[in-house]
Amino acid sequence: MNYRLIFHTLGWVISFEGICMLLPFACALGFLEQNPFIFLICMGICLLVGIPLTLIRPKEKSMFAKEGFVIVALSWIFLSIFGALPFFLSREIPLFSDALFETASGFSTTGASILPNVEALSKSMLFWRSFTHWIGGMGVIVFLVALLPLSGGDNMHLLRAESPGHSVGKLVPHVKSTAKILYSIYIGLTVLQFALMMADPGMDWFTALTLTFGTAGTGGFAILNSGLATYSPYIQWVVTVFMFIFGVDFTFYYCILMRRYKTAFSMEEVRTYVGIVLVMTALICLNIFHMIGNTADTLRHSAFQVASIITTTGYSTMDFNLWPQFSQMILVGLMFVGACAGSTGGGMKVSRVLVLCKSVLKEIRVLTHPKCTTRVKLNGRPIEHETLRGITVFFISYIFIFAIALLIISFDNFDFTTNFTAVAATLSNIGPGLCGVGPTANFSGYSPLSTMVLTLVMIAGRLEIFPMLVLFSRKTWKR
Amino acid sequence: MNYRLIFHTLGWVISFEGICMLLPFACALGFLEQNPFIFLICMGICLLVGIPLTLIRPKEKSMFAKEGFVIVALSWIFLSIFGALPFFLSREIPLFSDALFETASGFSTTGASILPNVEALSKSMLFWRSFTHWIGGMGVIVFLVALLPLSGGDNMHLLRAESPGHSVGKLVPHVKSTAKILYSIYIGLTVLQFALMMADPGMDWFTALTLTFGTAGTGGFAILNSGLATYSPYIQWVVTVFMFIFGVDFTFYYCILMRRYKTAFSMEEVRTYVGIVLVMTALICLNIFHMIGNTADTLRHSAFQVASIITTTGYSTMDFNLWPQFSQMILVGLMFVGACAGSTGGGMKVSRVLVLCKSVLKEIRVLTHPKCTTRVKLNGRPIEHETLRGITVFFISYIFIFAIALLIISFDNFDFTTNFTAVAATLSNIGPGLCGVGPTANFSGYSPLSTMVLTLVMIAGRLEIFPMLVLFSRKTWKR
Repeated sequence: MNYRLIFHTLGWVISFEGICMLLPFACALGFLEQNPFIFLICMGICLLVGIPLTLIRPKEKSMFAKEGFVIVALSWIFLSIFGALPFFLSREIPLFSDALFETASGFSTTGASILPNVEALSKSMLFWRSFTHWIGGMGVIVFLVALLPLSGGDNMHLLRAESPGHSVGKLVPHVKSTAKILYSIYIGLTVLQFALMMADPGMDWFTALTLTFGTAGTGGFAILNSGLATYSPYIQWVVTVFMFIFGVDFTFYYCILMRRYKTAFSMEEVRTYVGIVLVMTALICLNIFHMIGNTADTLRHSAFQVASIITTTGYSTMDFNLWPQFSQMILVGLMFVGACAGSTGGGMKVSRVLVLCKSVLKEIRVLTHPKCTTRVKLNGRPIEHETLRGITVFFISYIFIFAIALLIISFDNFDFTTNFTAVAATLSNIGPGLCGVGPTANFSGYSPLSTMVLTLVMIAGRLEIFPMLVLFSRKTWKR
Repeated sequence: MNYRLIFHTLGWVISFEGICMLLPFACALGFLEQNPFIFLICMGICLLVGIPLTLIRPKEKSMFAKEGFVIVALSWIFLSIFGALPFFLSREIPLFSDALFETASGFSTTGASILPNVEALSKSMLFWRSFTHWIGGMGVIVFLVALLPLSGGDNMHLLRAESPGHSVGKLVPHVKSTAKILYSIYIGLTVLQFALMMADPGMDWFTALTLTFGTAGTGGFAILNSGLATYSPYIQWVVTVFMFIFGVDFTFYYCILMRRYKTAFSMEEVRTYVGIVLVMTALICLNIFHMIGNTADTLRHSAFQVASIITTTGYSTMDFNLWPQFSQMILVGLMFVGACAGSTGGGMKVSRVLVLCKSVLKEIRVLTHPKCTTRVKLNGRPIEHETLRGITVFFISYIFIFAIALLIISFDNFDFTTNFTAVAATLSNIGPGLCGVGPTANFSGYSPLSTMVLTLVMIAGRLEIFPMLVLFSRKTWKR
């Protein structure tokens, strides 16, 4: 294990986080808050720890897959720990495990909160909370790879370990350029959404910005206790459309920019994603129409909630906990499916679910015609054996981690629906679940043990499990 | 598709079921019931349909995997349909979909009931209900293969499609002899349990026999509304031990009989099964001790419930719906795990879960050491690629069917816990779930649509999914 390389990279990550705190500090100054220097203090701590670490120069610059996983997993854990300092030191979230949960929820773009009253937070804290979504959405490592001569080795391992999806394609030959393109698209779309939000006459910049951060990162932290229920239908539609947009594989946008329209529109995952969104919105519309009574509102709430859950954002305009069980089950199903690989969304990803379905169909074919030798295909091309195995093992790990987390948090004796959807909502980085963790409720009832477990589950979900498994595997640290 | 062979075999299955009805008929006569001839009428119907079908001689005797799956799936569907006739024609269960549910629940050894009041059934019906468990436990096809010169072709396909577990080993070179050995062990253990039950002075033969049928088949139909709560601790312990025994791979007993002790005791699946039972019993003991207050009773209830759920029997001595959430979650987990492959139990099977765990561990190894080429092993031998793929695809299908069934039955608008555990309890052939389908409740609240879905789910679970998938696949019936 190349410890020097790990410390070096962690140093950059922590220093970067410190610098990010300049923004909420500016926000605190701008809103003339009582205690504006809290972010400056936290920034100081980050730099004090981070900079010395960056000075540890790795002797050996090459990086193996193992180091890639460990660095990414540790980066996200330390990001959450240092990111929790402002909440904790300002006493706005007095318990450190709670502050850690809230920060991990931010960076992992989950949006689950332990705050019974969000509106009690100061503006700068609300800003920091939403900003972590935006940073976490595309990934910290991706950002650093884009900017810095990090390690100089094969940064592909880092990118692969941090980016959502089973196969990070290099858009262009250089990892650095790929990371730059991803961030450019991300920033472009963010600016576009912010501009469209500001077009609403009732909208202020602070609300527009925090909501845009939450949408772009598919995070879901709101700044009102009522979520997004009180904003205008225009704002709700803008957020719906942008949640949907940020749930699409960014390769799609790159192809569009490069005018490779045919490649873009033949992407099987994106087509399936669109299909799922349309069908599920229609089903929910039919199912909840009697509760709302007019077509426009029914469509708006259905589309909003489907986009919010499948992209794993977790915003809500209505308490879907009161919807009929059928609609709730559709939402629970979408929690597992998640958005496209290569987007900022979480969950298992549409392409993985698609491949899993295809491998079941293939097995039926093999069972009935033992000599048949078809292979599972995606986008018309056969999937390599290793990739297929990776996807099935990912699915198995997902369900197993789900079961273990469910067992541990059941110690708190909440009902099954609450516990089940709490794990689903954290592992898939959504935010709200049903019942005790529904859109009008929060995670404040859980014990510190459970919040710690759910914190790890959120990070595991964001990093697509394997980096965390590698980090906690005994084998990794042997010899 | 060899239709003549399918009709021929179905003819034998239905005729066999008719002949089985002689036993409840004798029971009705013995108890001087009002309407003793109902079973004779149903037997007549079975023979009237079955015998002509057996006369359709297959021109081609060879059987392919496809036919094996189709025959087994259709056999179980028709077994359930004809088996439901006594309940329906006697008007003891007036709705046919309910009667079908009850019978499929019997044959699939689920033990889920739509009867709010079991005690209202006549003795002969209670006998038939429990007897279906015993028939379904080891399998009808296995029985016929043991006795009849069925098809003459490769009956291994039939045995493989009907028997639980991912790899039906031929215990001896001949399929026929393997089937005979399995049934001999089954009958031997059943007689032993019956004898031990009768040793209790308060026990009558009818109760002892029906409970033994339910235990041997790991079914779970009780003949009292209170389940097994009112029987003596001795009876409860006997049932506990025999549920456990019937959950073990029958190969184990064969090895013991052949004095191949070393092979028997080194079976990894059996060792894991024993380990799970011990650990989970201990955990539940600790968790529910405060509710019961004395060690002997705590141990008895815990051991009983763990054995009942992991073997997918579904008997209960206590309303575990009132246990702490942690114990409930252990039971829900065990519902999915199930018993050993090659036993009469349902669920995913311990060996499959074991292999799935190992493949996750293997993936971590591969991720950290890309050049590593270890293979997943069971009982010290590497698992073939096809077997491994079969197991992972089984797991995926299991979860997908689970999700689809859950979505459909959610139309009835029961709460999530009820629906979730209703599907778990039927797909894994257990019987009771939690809340609305808990040990003191039943499935009578579900609509005919839901009972039909759950009926199919029970049969799919018993046949380990693939035969049903093949039956309902369009590809199977092409050309």
